[in-house]
Amino acid sequence: MNPIKPKAVILLSGGLDSVTVLAKAKQQYDCFALSFSYGQRHDVELQAAKKIAALYQVSEHRILNIDLGQLGGSALTDMDIDVPESLEEGIPVTYVPARNTIFLSYALAWAEVLQAKDIFIGVNAVDYSGYPDCRPEYIDAFTQMANLATKSAVEGNKLSIHTPLISLSKAEIIKAGDELGVDYSMTVSCYSADQQAQACGRCDSCRLRRKGFADAGLSDPTQYSQSSGY
Amino acid sequence: MNPIKPKAVILLSGGLDSVTVLAKAKQQYDCFALSFSYGQRHDVELQAAKKIAALYQVSEHRILNIDLGQLGGSALTDMDIDVPESLEEGIPVTYVPARNTIFLSYALAWAEVLQAKDIFIGVNAVDYSGYPDCRPEYIDAFTQMANLATKSAVEGNKLSIHTPLISLSKAEIIKAGDELGVDYSMTVSCYSADQQAQACGRCDSCRLRRKGFADAGLSDPTQYSQSSGY
Repeated sequence: MNPIKPKAVILLSGGLDSVTVLAKAKQQYDCFALSFSYGQRHDVELQAAKKIAALYQVSEHRILNIDLGQLGGSALTDMDIDVPESLEEGIPVTYVPARNTIFLSYALAWAEVLQAKDIFIGVNAVDYSGYPDCRPEYIDAFTQMANLATKSAVEGNKLSIHTPLISLSKAEIIKAGDELGVDYSMTVSCYSADQQAQACGRCDSCRLRRKGFADAGLSDPTQYSQSSGY
Repeated sequence: MNPIKPKAVILLSGGLDSVTVLAKAKQQYDCFALSFSYGQRHDVELQAAKKIAALYQVSEHRILNIDLGQLGGSALTDMDIDVPESLEEGIPVTYVPARNTIFLSYALAWAEVLQAKDIFIGVNAVDYSGYPDCRPEYIDAFTQMANLATKSAVEGNKLSIHTPLISLSKAEIIKAGDELGVDYSMTVSCYSADQQAQACGRCDSCRLRRKGFADAGLSDPTQYSQSSGY
């Protein structure tokens, strides 16, 4: 921790994107990582987040238990909806209703308590364009709302939401992370990863990740399960 | 439940304001009540919310466990900060960072799952003007953000956030509720109510409530604890 650096809250899922964001933020900020246990199908992603937070020596890593799964409506939290194995058109069923809005709201609350003026989130409008809460216009609207919402903002500490990956392709994200020395073998992207954090190789998230490494011309360190055929 | 009425999500704390909002919403909407267990100092408020939800025969009442208290920063959730007994200037220490933003975000998620286009919240900019997230400009900004955030809104189901109390005084709220037959003895406003839901009579919330009944010219059904002197 460098006391000269300003504080920032980093949303850290344990996936490829968020570790890249943390690696970028770490260069200029005193990082406070925030993760959520929200009824995901598995907790290997959170285990990855813990290891990454430790590796990057964040000043604090909080994992909040939130009841998002209780509201239903997504294949990622609702066991009655199957995770699809093929890329869909339009907004995918793995979309979790208002997820980024809820995550950013908690980040906003913690930022205010920490007196931090910066929040980092690894949203991406290229590969995941089906998610409405990954678009720049959504982030801008959240920022405007946030700056009317809190005591801190009203008192003049305007908040910024940083989205360093928003316009990058998966291959560009991987290249950027590689240059920052990110060890992507620590990250979990698969929607259906098993308890050993082995990826299925078939879901949307696995396909985008594999394609990303291939397009970047880098070897893919992901551990795929034997049954995936990779 | 009337199948002709459109669905609405009602944020229901169990306090005086939210029950008045529910009574109003009930006239035109099929109501789904949403409450939160977020590390309040007591759960008598939630018990009141349960009774009120049952009395008004809402179609569903969900109580979400959320980790707001874990972030600290407020006298309502942080045991290291005393609840003040006198009205303060500026934003009070009972302000919970980003509370309404987090509550509205969950309401947004549930509204999307329910395919509801209406959310009701009992914010009030008159008596509680110290809370930035109770002002009309904040609600407008949240609505704009919400309409960019969800699959449902992107597909054309624009969301509205109703704030029927926003410009009413406490006395006007009580009069409006009284005309709708609201039984305010069921509600809990006190920040320090005991396990029997008896109010302290001294905190900001008690003072505003007592003054409200007095200004409305109505008898105050609140049960004050004997030690309060009332």
